[in-house]
Amino acid sequence: MLKEIYQRQSIRKYKTKPVEQEKIEELLKAAMQAPTARNNQTWRFLVITNRRQLDEMTELQPYTGMMKTAPCAILVMGDKEASADEGYLYLDGAAAIENILIEAVHQGLGTCWCGIWPKTERVEGFQKKFSLPAEYIPIGVVAVGYADEEKPIQNRFDVTKIQYVK
Amino acid sequence: MLKEIYQRQSIRKYKTKPVEQEKIEELLKAAMQAPTARNNQTWRFLVITNRRQLDEMTELQPYTGMMKTAPCAILVMGDKEASADEGYLYLDGAAAIENILIEAVHQGLGTCWCGIWPKTERVEGFQKKFSLPAEYIPIGVVAVGYADEEKPIQNRFDVTKIQYVK
Repeated sequence: MLKEIYQRQSIRKYKTKPVEQEKIEELLKAAMQAPTARNNQTWRFLVITNRRQLDEMTELQPYTGMMKTAPCAILVMGDKEASADEGYLYLDGAAAIENILIEAVHQGLGTCWCGIWPKTERVEGFQKKFSLPAEYIPIGVVAVGYADEEKPIQNRFDVTKIQYVK
Repeated sequence: MLKEIYQRQSIRKYKTKPVEQEKIEELLKAAMQAPTARNNQTWRFLVITNRRQLDEMTELQPYTGMMKTAPCAILVMGDKEASADEGYLYLDGAAAIENILIEAVHQGLGTCWCGIWPKTERVEGFQKKFSLPAEYIPIGVVAVGYADEEKPIQNRFDVTKIQYVK
C-alpha cells in the first residue's frame, strides 16, 4: 500500500513552524486532482493562517481544539451553483479533503479533518464568520502543520466488512 | 505531488485480465485506512466479479457502461447503524473511495467512480439487486481493472477557487 495512505493520521498538536506557501499549493493542487461528479469541480477553498481566526475556531466547531496550535487550516467548501445536486458537493468535497490529507503526508505535514456539514449550526457559523457567499457550503476544515506528536499507526483492515459476489 | 494522485483518471475501457485477489485486498486495505467521522468506520464493501452482474449494472446506474469491460467492481456502502448521523456515511464513503482510486494507480490498475447516492432510484436499485441489509446505503461503485485506453492527464488546478484569510 502507498505509505502515504497507510501512515495518514489525525494530528492534534503542531509545531509553531509555518507551512511553506509552496506546500500549501501542492495540497490544493492535489485536492483539485480529485474526481467530481460530472466533472463539475464544485470545490472552493479558504486557506486560513490568521492566528486569531484559528484560535477562535472552537466557537464554530467544538472539536477543533488542535487549531490553537496549527499554523494553517484549509476550509473546503462546495459551490451549490456549480452542481446539479447538492448531495454531490459532499462527495466531491470529501474526496478532495482525502487528497489533501494524503498529499500532506507526502509533504512531511500532519493534518486533522474536522467535520462541518451535516451539522447546520456549524455550516452557518463558518458562513457567517468568514462572510462566505450563500451558495458556498462549508464541508470540512483541515488543520495543517508540522506534527508535534507521535502516535502509533492503526491498521483498520477488517475482513468482516467485505463480501463477494463471484 | 504524489504521482498516484496526479495520474488518477476515470478509465472506461478495461482489458479482460482479471484483477489479482491480493490487489483487490490492497485496495480494500487502503479504503479502510481513510478517516471516518468519530472513527466509526462506517464503510462496508461488496466486491463484484460476477460477469452477469457487471454486465447488467447499467440497469441500476445508466453511466456504468464501462462495467461491461471491467473484470471487477467495488460497491462502497455506509452502514446507517454504525453512524450517529447519516450524513457522515457519505463523507466516510467518499474518502474511502478516493483511497481506492489512488491505491489502484499504485497497483497499476485503472478505476472509474460511478455515483449512486444521492439518487434514490439508484440506491434502491442496488439494495434490491444485491439483497443488501436495509441499513446499508450504497454510496458509489468503482470499476476496477487493467486500463485498455490511454488518456492525457488533466491538470485541474484553478487558483480562482482559492482565497486566503491571513
